[in-house]
Amino acid sequence: MLTFAKELYPLNRSITGEGLRQTLRRIQVELPELQIRSVPTGTQVFDWIVPDEWEISDAFIEDPSGRRIVDFSNNNLHVVGYSVAVDVRMSLDELNLHLHSLPDLPDAIPYVTSYYHDNWGFCLSHRQRQSLPSGNYRVVIRSRKFDGVLNYGELFIPGRSAEEVLLSSYVCHPSLANNELSGPTVLTFLGKQLSARENRLSYRLVFVPETIGAICFLNDNLEHLRVSVSAGFNLTCIGDERNFSVIHSRLGTTLSDRVAVAAARMMSPSFREYTFLDRGSDERQYCSPLVDMPIVTLCRTRFYDFPEYHTSLDNFDVVTAQGLEGGFQFASKCIELLENNPRFRARFPCEPQLGRRGLYPSLGGAPSGASVNFLLDVLAYCDGHHDAQAISQITRRPVEDVTRALDVLLSYDLIRQ
Amino acid sequence: MLTFAKELYPLNRSITGEGLRQTLRRIQVELPELQIRSVPTGTQVFDWIVPDEWEISDAFIEDPSGRRIVDFSNNNLHVVGYSVAVDVRMSLDELNLHLHSLPDLPDAIPYVTSYYHDNWGFCLSHRQRQSLPSGNYRVVIRSRKFDGVLNYGELFIPGRSAEEVLLSSYVCHPSLANNELSGPTVLTFLGKQLSARENRLSYRLVFVPETIGAICFLNDNLEHLRVSVSAGFNLTCIGDERNFSVIHSRLGTTLSDRVAVAAARMMSPSFREYTFLDRGSDERQYCSPLVDMPIVTLCRTRFYDFPEYHTSLDNFDVVTAQGLEGGFQFASKCIELLENNPRFRARFPCEPQLGRRGLYPSLGGAPSGASVNFLLDVLAYCDGHHDAQAISQITRRPVEDVTRALDVLLSYDLIRQ
Amino acid sequence: MLTFAKELYPLNRSITGEGLRQTLRRIQVELPELQIRSVPTGTQVFDWIVPDEWEISDAFIEDPSGRRIVDFSNNNLHVVGYSVAVDVRMSLDELNLHLHSLPDLPDAIPYVTSYYHDNWGFCLSHRQRQSLPSGNYRVVIRSRKFDGVLNYGELFIPGRSAEEVLLSSYVCHPSLANNELSGPTVLTFLGKQLSARENRLSYRLVFVPETIGAICFLNDNLEHLRVSVSAGFNLTCIGDERNFSVIHSRLGTTLSDRVAVAAARMMSPSFREYTFLDRGSDERQYCSPLVDMPIVTLCRTRFYDFPEYHTSLDNFDVVTAQGLEGGFQFASKCIELLENNPRFRARFPCEPQLGRRGLYPSLGGAPSGASVNFLLDVLAYCDGHHDAQAISQITRRPVEDVTRALDVLLSYDLIRQ
Repeated sequence: MLTFAKELYPLNRSITGEGLRQTLRRIQVELPELQIRSVPTGTQVFDWIVPDEWEISDAFIEDPSGRRIVDFSNNNLHVVGYSVAVDVRMSLDELNLHLHSLPDLPDAIPYVTSYYHDNWGFCLSHRQRQSLPSGNYRVVIRSRKFDGVLNYGELFIPGRSAEEVLLSSYVCHPSLANNELSGPTVLTFLGKQLSARENRLSYRLVFVPETIGAICFLNDNLEHLRVSVSAGFNLTCIGDERNFSVIHSRLGTTLSDRVAVAAARMMSPSFREYTFLDRGSDERQYCSPLVDMPIVTLCRTRFYDFPEYHTSLDNFDVVTAQGLEGGFQFASKCIELLENNPRFRARFPCEPQLGRRGLYPSLGGAPSGASVNFLLDVLAYCDGHHDAQAISQITRRPVEDVTRALDVLLSYDLIRQ
Repeated sequence: MLTFAKELYPLNRSITGEGLRQTLRRIQVELPELQIRSVPTGTQVFDWIVPDEWEISDAFIEDPSGRRIVDFSNNNLHVVGYSVAVDVRMSLDELNLHLHSLPDLPDAIPYVTSYYHDNWGFCLSHRQRQSLPSGNYRVVIRSRKFDGVLNYGELFIPGRSAEEVLLSSYVCHPSLANNELSGPTVLTFLGKQLSARENRLSYRLVFVPETIGAICFLNDNLEHLRVSVSAGFNLTCIGDERNFSVIHSRLGTTLSDRVAVAAARMMSPSFREYTFLDRGSDERQYCSPLVDMPIVTLCRTRFYDFPEYHTSLDNFDVVTAQGLEGGFQFASKCIELLENNPRFRARFPCEPQLGRRGLYPSLGGAPSGASVNFLLDVLAYCDGHHDAQAISQITRRPVEDVTRALDVLLSYDLIRQ
Repeated sequence: MLTFAKELYPLNRSITGEGLRQTLRRIQVELPELQIRSVPTGTQVFDWIVPDEWEISDAFIEDPSGRRIVDFSNNNLHVVGYSVAVDVRMSLDELNLHLHSLPDLPDAIPYVTSYYHDNWGFCLSHRQRQSLPSGNYRVVIRSRKFDGVLNYGELFIPGRSAEEVLLSSYVCHPSLANNELSGPTVLTFLGKQLSARENRLSYRLVFVPETIGAICFLNDNLEHLRVSVSAGFNLTCIGDERNFSVIHSRLGTTLSDRVAVAAARMMSPSFREYTFLDRGSDERQYCSPLVDMPIVTLCRTRFYDFPEYHTSLDNFDVVTAQGLEGGFQFASKCIELLENNPRFRARFPCEPQLGRRGLYPSLGGAPSGASVNFLLDVLAYCDGHHDAQAISQITRRPVEDVTRALDVLLSYDLIRQ
């Protein structure tokens, strides 16, 4: 996963454009069934209008001595996203109005965009900014905005049931590792795993430009999603080694919320829960009042809560092979919990005669083995109402143990789904 | 309000009679639409029978030297309410059986009544009582009980909706300031304010003799009230400067309960909540099992919980202009919260494009301003189910902030009621 | 009760057979209406098959010198329950494979059974076992298994209402005092008390062999029980002097759960609550998913939680007259709480005019007496929904106080059932 993320890293993604398409095509190499959708710019999607495509070929600042001191070709964070074209000379004072830097992180280049308002600007480290001499600067941005399309990728992996799980991540940030590439990377590898096996549930994976792309996807599919999706997760900031985090859905009580908490607890007892008030990614759209899907965001360390967020320091010092692997395991566990979520019902009243079935120590009188007791505990809640999650909560045992017990009970024909 | 309360103070109110009518007529000066209802004495009202009217013209005790040492014309608390007529001479020992004083508050005249049992008595300060010399005393009470009426005042202020808010206070205590005049005073001025403006809700104000008057009012109107009243408040002991208090409804979960707690929290973070077990005023009737209206009692300091309660010390040292103003604000806030209680619904799925509406910092990437985030938080719960109270609880922000945010969202056409 | 339990103590009970029938017949002496049911061996009952009857006349071990060192006629715990017949000679090493003892309780004879698997064995104290010399032993068990019946006792005590309370205990352990005889002893004496008086509710008492007997009883009566039983208790380990314990029903929220906790709290504030995960007696069957009856198990000290459990030390040093009396009181209180569990409704809206009824201090003004206030508190929750338990919880007063208050309210015609 780290190699894959590093391959995507240099591409100049934005909410539209060639960098986004290159990214989707690279994902398509891994997931050949991925469909690349196009929404014409200018399309009304709910309250939004899809903005013009943005293209940029070159951008730089020349200092009074003619030296290129800031160059888009060195780091695509140097240019404010969606900057309009410009080729002018100006004083340092004038230029400063278009420069962005972070005094508190003097070596970091910030990430800034202006999608819906014509503007231009450059981002650079505060240290470099402070060293700029007075004088006459040349500023060049070779960009254009034009009628085109917004793209997003969608992959449907049918399972035995038509019930769908929505998995979403976003592909619109340029060279930023945790917030963003960790998300599509983990999602791509989940897609590979899900495609390679039989699943109980169906899975719909989407790689969208954040906000506007999620809105386009919802605008295209809302009615279908509303009836088909029983759970889902948005993946973001899921490649660092720090913590595991759950951002709850709007009301916080869906199946996805329960599953995400159970999975996070398995990953680390010190995982963190956020309410919907701490949202910030596409859960904002998926959980909005008239959409109201059961979507929870999974992170390792949440956006805003790691110091490198939205700066050039969000690189592969933050995102590591081990961090991505933990994120993948976290999301996988959510999926396993959903796959293993059916409800069961005892096949007859009273307890089964375990001895007759070779499940019980034949010499009564002494307390029977712990594992048989656990089987009976799980069976006691096979009343058609409690799923494995709920039984796990009642018995205070990991869901994986409950799932294993349910398998045994099924194999002995003591319960049915 | 203080002037008004002081004007009512000397009137000799009881649960029937001329003092009660004088009080209602004085309120009518402020609220010309107030209807004065009459219920004949002897009428059965649920489990009760309206007692005879009581009239008193004079009452005094003469000491052995013939000096008037206790005189009703000095303080109407001196006579036990509903005392029967008497004109006798007796020893101090005999007299003592009819005297009431408070050893723990030696300068206070207690307030005592005997509405439903023929009796007579005098109340005086313990200090005075201890100074009484032995000897022959003359005792005169010139009173009578007779067939007449019980009165209460009722004012209906129609609003745009037929949904009613019941506001109730009582007018049966003689010269007592906090427990009682603070209640009808605040209620009168609320009535003036509500009458002078347009309201979303309709308001029904009642000024009743406590207990028997509330029962008469309910007996007259129960069926109508049951279907029309969605919230309401009983006002009592609402003119001191000490605290703010809420006595919850019987089950404690009505809209009135939520609103009262929210308003009390705005008035003072150290407000006090009482359960229905601490009740003592007309919430006893309004919340009784077969009435079961959503009525909460609002106090500054609850009856029983201030030392001057039911004594001559409950005067304008306790009740002040500032105390009344605080009580008025408390009740007003409850009303504003009810007025502003509608539920809203987003006008379209997903978030709105705030930038297009001038609501969003146009330069993306950095966390947006707190106020925009709050607008989005409020919008996130505009799902047709959450009212401002509920959104306030979820977002942990004062209801007034939520209401302001809802106004902004309405003005931008992002939600509808 | 202690005398009765001691009479039953020597009988050689098992899940079938003559010892069980002798026990039921002895109970029948106390409860002449007790019906003794028979289920043929080999009958399928839900997932189980009723095993053969077991009969044993003699069993002993002779040491190499020909001395009877272990003899069933001395203590019926010496033989593993349901041992097959044997008459052989063997070395100590071979014999040891069939001996059971407890190294941690060297003076105790353990209790061991093998109902559903042909086997034989002897139980003895570890101290005796360690003293056995090498050599040739003779082992004799004169027993047989044969087609016969399984028996259980059932007594129905009709009340004014057809609503049933199920009371269950078990009669299949040989000479064991707390786990087992305390249960049928207390149940027998409850039956005597219930038979001798008029009851609001109907009572169904069953004395069953544990597990298989409860399953037979359920198999015979499930449909009827499902509609008729509104509460019930399983009695076990209820004759020691240590604690009071409640093992909750499967979901823990039934009327029986509430009643048992209230009764246990009355017996001792330090009573212990167990969840259904700590079950081990016939609550296992009564609460199984497709039966799901509101049955709670009452113990003094729960099986597994006293050191003498399932050994010869579980004798009348553990079970005492005082211990049985406490257990009887505990179960009686549960019954009283159920008998007194009806829900009441005020007879009219608003408060009653207590003064007119002689219930109120006639001189108003001062706070009325605590007991009148409590009457009014109880009345306030007579809304047809709250039972005495619930009112007890709201008012934080013992249920017995609430019940007494309800009686007063009924006697004054202020509420009706």
